[in-house]
Amino acid sequence: MNRFVYADNAATTPMSESVFEAMKPFLTEFYGNPSSLYRIGREARRAVTEARMKVARALNAKDPSEIIFTGGGSQADNLAIRGYVKGRSARGKKHIITSKIEHHAVLYTCEALEKEGYPVTYLDVDAQGHVDLEQLKSVITDQTALVTIMAANNEIGTIQNLKAISEIAHAHGAVFHTDAVQAVGHMPLDVQEMGIDMLSLSAHKFRGPKGIGALYVRRGIALEPLVYGGGQERGLASGTENVAGMVGLGQAIEDATGEHLAEKMGYVKKLTDRLVRGIMDAIPYTHYTGDPVNRLPGTASFVFEAIEGEGLILRLDLAGICGSTGSACSTGSLDPSHVLMAIGLPHEIAHGSLRLTLGEQNTEEDVDYLIENVTKVVETLRAMSPVWVDGKPDLTAASDLHDDHHHHH
Amino acid sequence: MNRFVYADNAATTPMSESVFEAMKPFLTEFYGNPSSLYRIGREARRAVTEARMKVARALNAKDPSEIIFTGGGSQADNLAIRGYVKGRSARGKKHIITSKIEHHAVLYTCEALEKEGYPVTYLDVDAQGHVDLEQLKSVITDQTALVTIMAANNEIGTIQNLKAISEIAHAHGAVFHTDAVQAVGHMPLDVQEMGIDMLSLSAHKFRGPKGIGALYVRRGIALEPLVYGGGQERGLASGTENVAGMVGLGQAIEDATGEHLAEKMGYVKKLTDRLVRGIMDAIPYTHYTGDPVNRLPGTASFVFEAIEGEGLILRLDLAGICGSTGSACSTGSLDPSHVLMAIGLPHEIAHGSLRLTLGEQNTEEDVDYLIENVTKVVETLRAMSPVWVDGKPDLTAASDLHDDHHHHH
Repeated sequence: MNRFVYADNAATTPMSESVFEAMKPFLTEFYGNPSSLYRIGREARRAVTEARMKVARALNAKDPSEIIFTGGGSQADNLAIRGYVKGRSARGKKHIITSKIEHHAVLYTCEALEKEGYPVTYLDVDAQGHVDLEQLKSVITDQTALVTIMAANNEIGTIQNLKAISEIAHAHGAVFHTDAVQAVGHMPLDVQEMGIDMLSLSAHKFRGPKGIGALYVRRGIALEPLVYGGGQERGLASGTENVAGMVGLGQAIEDATGEHLAEKMGYVKKLTDRLVRGIMDAIPYTHYTGDPVNRLPGTASFVFEAIEGEGLILRLDLAGICGSTGSACSTGSLDPSHVLMAIGLPHEIAHGSLRLTLGEQNTEEDVDYLIENVTKVVETLRAMSPVWVDGKPDLTAASDLHDDHHHHH
Repeated sequence: MNRFVYADNAATTPMSESVFEAMKPFLTEFYGNPSSLYRIGREARRAVTEARMKVARALNAKDPSEIIFTGGGSQADNLAIRGYVKGRSARGKKHIITSKIEHHAVLYTCEALEKEGYPVTYLDVDAQGHVDLEQLKSVITDQTALVTIMAANNEIGTIQNLKAISEIAHAHGAVFHTDAVQAVGHMPLDVQEMGIDMLSLSAHKFRGPKGIGALYVRRGIALEPLVYGGGQERGLASGTENVAGMVGLGQAIEDATGEHLAEKMGYVKKLTDRLVRGIMDAIPYTHYTGDPVNRLPGTASFVFEAIEGEGLILRLDLAGICGSTGSACSTGSLDPSHVLMAIGLPHEIAHGSLRLTLGEQNTEEDVDYLIENVTKVVETLRAMSPVWVDGKPDLTAASDLHDDHHHHH
């Protein structure tokens, strides 16, 4: 293996040295329970308070008490959506509006609520993955409790117009939640300026630890708890605090936002542009997916005709490259991604998707290595593909293959 | 400060060196998402599998797939109770039986379900904190879905007769869950031999990290998810895996159980016996709470007449001693503990509770230091107490004080 290039920063990120160093004392000497009255308990409590302040500051929340720590981004999404519609702030209104390209933490929560009698509207997106704002205006009513739309998509990187969505939601008395798990630390987010009422985030997506996330909840919104118990996190997410995790999240969000953000975004975007151009130039019958401009700076998402994404990932792995196909979060599933379906890609083409996501730790040399190796691997796989004939895709064969695979086996 | 004695091991425990070392690679180099197909993702996935096997082995579960990792003990309790009664395995049966001395993660979940139309019976306990088995037999019916009784109490250490409870539950077609958060790693637990259908545990109670726990769920029991999303943890607790936390839990449970357990229990029990004898001999008007024999080896729980627990904790802290009053998990609350009320202690006496809980890292010197300093502090506080008159408690004054405090201020 010549080189190791981690290009799956949308799946998870390497924890930074500064985060590890910040966490260490709370994994060793300051082990006190933050609920305790003595010194090592108070030290832990103070650290949790400070971490909460850092998260609040990064999002421009008015008050640290608006930050609820959870066990991760999915827990934050579940708490926001279920907690809100079951809570008293919803005042009995039941209608939920979301989109077809949300993360499963949002989609499956909405589907479960649908079975419990909550009507849900799933908005369409255009070919670049933008939510249809006209459709939003036409389906929202005064019975709409909640609009939940992700800030940026985890597969294709497309950024939504959060301010426009919040204005439509608020004009109808609905609350606006955004799953910003993929966005925090990678684009500017300001809950006040953007009119965001609830926002989910996860530390491991911006070089913090796994197993810790947070939900911003605007003051005045009452939620039903996700976890009942000792009353931690304002009673919404009970359980002894993951002190080290919270400290790690605080450090990571401080490192990833504020004054450092613009510079990092510029650097990562430049790398990603080079990668996209390199791949689109080198490999024919390739589709770029997502919005080429309004996207997360590190996301490069492609579809290569006539190949299967899984083989691509495994061969890239042999070359020391980490990438993904479809959503890395759809554990064990090899069905084509719901996001690629929603932007209108045909089923047989969507199977050939590749997502390469860069971070601040990547270099130009990484990018050139990616271009070279992705090109080689795609060529090799196409040479073996039954639907690659005479240097181009044979769509008749593709459709046969697809039928065969799904109906006869 | 002469010495530092951590005697609050029931609130949380210092993470052991071996656990920290086991976690470290997964906080640094092996940062892959376990859902990923490439090498560093597979390494993470393998580590999670191994940790799951270690938990299964420690509980004598039949299969590792019966272990569901959660963000802690409270999440495990919530998943077990709500997940079961809402799931299809309950077959529409709704009645829940629990006890009056459960942890709030169990009690408040039951109370929330009660509001949603699930009838709940809260069993009484005797003066030592044993659940009334005759009452259990008399209230259980074929409409009882779930019996949930803790393995050992977090405040007084009393161990319940789990096998007897499971037999009664099973005779009526009910499932038996036990909150063993305080028990795992401190007493033998065998889910097969004891007839336990679901069991909650938390790593930080046996020298593992905070923010990670697990629920054992006997094969064949279907639960509603706690968190919807990417489908991790058999779809019951979705979210990118807290790999380092899971590895830490695996290491901690391996260290705390098996062949090491009996020796550790013997050592800790000897220390605790010395502590209990020392304090009961030195300080008059002191009540020992809990079962003196069938209790967690490290738990020493007392009530001192005529003083307030909070002042006791703060003064002990000045002497470098960490202890607790009431439940450390009842964040910020200074109400007398529901456990001490349930065992029949009068309100005005229960305020003077002290829980000292020892672990394998404590020594005889620690115990002697505890006895000496607790004695001194109790004497000092009594000397200042308005309800301590002529070297004994003045119960008339106590009752006046109580009235004054609650009704006139």
